[in-house]
Amino acid sequence: MTLTLENPRLLSLAAGFTDNHTLPVGLISTAVATLAKARATDPEHLQYGMNQGRLGLRRQLAQLLLSHEPALDGNPVATDHRFIITNGSQQALYLAMQVLCSPGDIVLVDRPSYFVFLEMLTGLGIEARSLPTNATGELDRAGLRSLLASMKADGSAARLKAVYFVSYFSNPSGRSLSLEEKSLIADELTAAGLFIPAIEDAAYRDLYFSTPHPAPSMLSLPAWADFPQFYTSTLTKPFATGLKIGYGTCNDPRWLAKMLHVKGHHDFGSAHLNQAICEHALVTGAFKSHLAQTLRPTYERKMQLLNDALESGGLRQKGWRWEKPTGGLYLWLEGPASLDTGLDSAFFKACVTAGVLYVPGDLCFGDHPAKHFVRLSYGVLDEKNLVEAAHRFCSQA
Amino acid sequence: MTLTLENPRLLSLAAGFTDNHTLPVGLISTAVATLAKARATDPEHLQYGMNQGRLGLRRQLAQLLLSHEPALDGNPVATDHRFIITNGSQQALYLAMQVLCSPGDIVLVDRPSYFVFLEMLTGLGIEARSLPTNATGELDRAGLRSLLASMKADGSAARLKAVYFVSYFSNPSGRSLSLEEKSLIADELTAAGLFIPAIEDAAYRDLYFSTPHPAPSMLSLPAWADFPQFYTSTLTKPFATGLKIGYGTCNDPRWLAKMLHVKGHHDFGSAHLNQAICEHALVTGAFKSHLAQTLRPTYERKMQLLNDALESGGLRQKGWRWEKPTGGLYLWLEGPASLDTGLDSAFFKACVTAGVLYVPGDLCFGDHPAKHFVRLSYGVLDEKNLVEAAHRFCSQA
Repeated sequence: MTLTLENPRLLSLAAGFTDNHTLPVGLISTAVATLAKARATDPEHLQYGMNQGRLGLRRQLAQLLLSHEPALDGNPVATDHRFIITNGSQQALYLAMQVLCSPGDIVLVDRPSYFVFLEMLTGLGIEARSLPTNATGELDRAGLRSLLASMKADGSAARLKAVYFVSYFSNPSGRSLSLEEKSLIADELTAAGLFIPAIEDAAYRDLYFSTPHPAPSMLSLPAWADFPQFYTSTLTKPFATGLKIGYGTCNDPRWLAKMLHVKGHHDFGSAHLNQAICEHALVTGAFKSHLAQTLRPTYERKMQLLNDALESGGLRQKGWRWEKPTGGLYLWLEGPASLDTGLDSAFFKACVTAGVLYVPGDLCFGDHPAKHFVRLSYGVLDEKNLVEAAHRFCSQA
Repeated sequence: MTLTLENPRLLSLAAGFTDNHTLPVGLISTAVATLAKARATDPEHLQYGMNQGRLGLRRQLAQLLLSHEPALDGNPVATDHRFIITNGSQQALYLAMQVLCSPGDIVLVDRPSYFVFLEMLTGLGIEARSLPTNATGELDRAGLRSLLASMKADGSAARLKAVYFVSYFSNPSGRSLSLEEKSLIADELTAAGLFIPAIEDAAYRDLYFSTPHPAPSMLSLPAWADFPQFYTSTLTKPFATGLKIGYGTCNDPRWLAKMLHVKGHHDFGSAHLNQAICEHALVTGAFKSHLAQTLRPTYERKMQLLNDALESGGLRQKGWRWEKPTGGLYLWLEGPASLDTGLDSAFFKACVTAGVLYVPGDLCFGDHPAKHFVRLSYGVLDEKNLVEAAHRFCSQA
C-alpha cells in the first residue's frame, strides 16, 4: 500500500479495494437526504444506536440471509436477535477470536486463507493450522482426519478453539466450498469429538457474477447442527465500502453475548448513520438493484479482461495455472513450482520495477506456506490499467 | 437503557446521549451531497481509507488542537502524523489499554471517573486505583504521594501501567482539572520514578458553555514532558453522534505504532464516509458554527433548567450538594451521606417507580465506591421533560 502511494506509475493488482466507479454515490446521497427529510425533527439515525446494531438493519440482514437460504425460515439464527452489526466483517472476526482464544491456542483455517485474518491471529498470539487440501485445492477428508488424529495424539487438540473458512468466491482463491466440502469438515470434527466453534466468512457471497453459488452456508447443514456457528458477511464489498458495515449471526446465545460484551467495550455500537443508510438501501431494493445492475456485471467484465490479458500474455505457456472464478474479486495464480513470489523474492522486485504490484501467495497460508502463488485483484484498476498491469505481470513471468 | 425502552413513561436522566434536536441533520445532508458532486466520478470517500485515518481529517484535528493550544505549534503531537481516527473515542481508549496492559495490571483513574472506561478495564482484567481527592473533589497531592509510596512498598507499583483522567467538564463530575491539578499528577509520578503512560480524555473540551476551560492539556505542560502521552477526544459529542468519529494524538511513536497495529486487526480503518463528512464540517467552519450557535447555548440552557428545577424542588434543603458546571452534559449530585443510590437501593427503585432514571454514582468509582452520588444528564430530554424529570427526582429525594 505504501509502495503504491509512493510510486504513482505502479499499478496495483494487490489492493483488495472495490471499484471506485461502482460505488453507490448517488444512492447514498439520496438515502441521507431521505432520512434527513423523514427525520427532520427527530434524527435518531444521527444519535447513538444499540450496541448490537440497528434493529431495522438486523431485520433486513436476516431477510437477506433467508433470500439465500429459505430453509432457515423459523431458525433463530435467521432472526434479528442473533445478528450483530460490526465495523466491517473484520470486527466480527476479531470479536469471535478475542472471546474464543487465548495466546497459544490453535485455529483451523482454510488453505489458502484470508491473509488479514491470519495476521490478526498472529497479533492475538493464536496459531493457525491449515485444513488439508489436495492438489486441485479441494478439502482433503483423509488429510483432515489424519491431522485431527495427530493433534489428539500430541495433545494440541486441547488448544484447538475454532475453525474458520471463507466459503464463497474466497479471498484469495476465488473458490467456493461445495456442500460436501463444508460438511466433511463437520463430519471429521464430529468423528474426533471436537465440537469447536465454526466461523464461516461469507464476505463475497453476494458478489457472484451470474448465479449464486449453490451450496448453502453451514447454518443449513445437518452436519454442523451440533456446533457453535458464527456466520459473518459484510456490506462493504457488495454495496458501499466506505460505510464499513459488516455483520454476523450466531446460533449460540452465550458466544454471541460474549462478543456483544466485548463490542460494548470496543465502541458500544457501530456508526448509526451508516447502519441507517444500509437499512434504507435494503428496504428500498437499491442494494439488490445496484448489485445486479452495476457490481456484478462490472466485476465479471473486469475478471474476464484480466483473465484474457493473462492468457494472451502467454502466462499459461510459461507454466502458470489458474481457474476462472464465478464471483468475487480475485484471481489466484499458481506459478511454476520452482518460482518464489514472496516479498523478498527477485520476482516480486522485478514486478515492482516493471510497475505492477500483487499479493504474494505465501502470506495467505496459515502454515507451511507455498512460495509460488500470487493473488491478483481486479477490484480497483480501471479496464485500461487492468490490461496494462497484466501485460507488465506477464512480461516478468 | 433496557428499562427506558420498556417503560415509555420513564424519563431518563441517565443516558449519555446528545440532544436529538441539536444533531446537524442539514449539515450532514449538505456535506454528503457536496462530496457526491465533487467526487461524482471518483468517490474516494466511499472507498476504504487508511488504517490511521483520513489525512485531511487528521490535519483538521491537529488544527483544532492548535486552536485550543497555540503553543503546541511545531510540536509533532499537533501534526497529522501523530493522530489516529477511531470508532468514537471509546476505541481510542480501548486500543490504549489493550496495548499497555495485561490482566492483573493497574491503572490510575480520576475519582469519579468515566464508568464505561471503568467497565472496559474490568473486561480486560485490569484493576483501577483512584487518584485521591479531597472533600471538594480536587486532586490531593499528599494523598497521591502516599498512594504511590504504598504501591512501591507493597510491590504493586510494578503493575501500574497507565494513568487516565477526564480533564474537561468531566463525565460524570462536570469538573475540569486545573493546570495545577494536572501538573501535580505528573510531579508525584516523577518523584516516585513512575514514568507511566498517561491518557487524557478531553471528550467534552469543545462543549464549554461560554468560555473554554483555561487549563491547557497535559500535552503543553512541562511536568508531563517526559511521559508517554495520549490525548483523546471525539466529534460524537460536539458534532454528530451517529457518525461515531473519535480521535487521539500520541507523543510516543512506539505506543502509537502499537495502537495502529491493533487497530489494523480490529477493523483496518474507521468508516471513510464519516471521516470525510467530519473533515468537510471542519474545513467549512460548519463544526465551529454549529457548536457556537446550537450546541453550546442549548446545553447551557438545559443545564440551567435542570439545575433550577432541582433548586426549586428543594433538593439542597434536603441535604444534596452540587456545583453548576460550565460545560459538558452532566450534573453530579452528592446526596446525604447516609443515602444509598445504588442500582439495588430503595432510592433507585423509588425513582424508577416515580418515572425517573439516573446513573448511580457508585458505578463511577474505580475503587472504594461512594454510595451517595448520582449522575444526571441534561443531554437527551427536551426542556419540558427535563423539568418533569427533575420534579420526579426531587419528590423521592
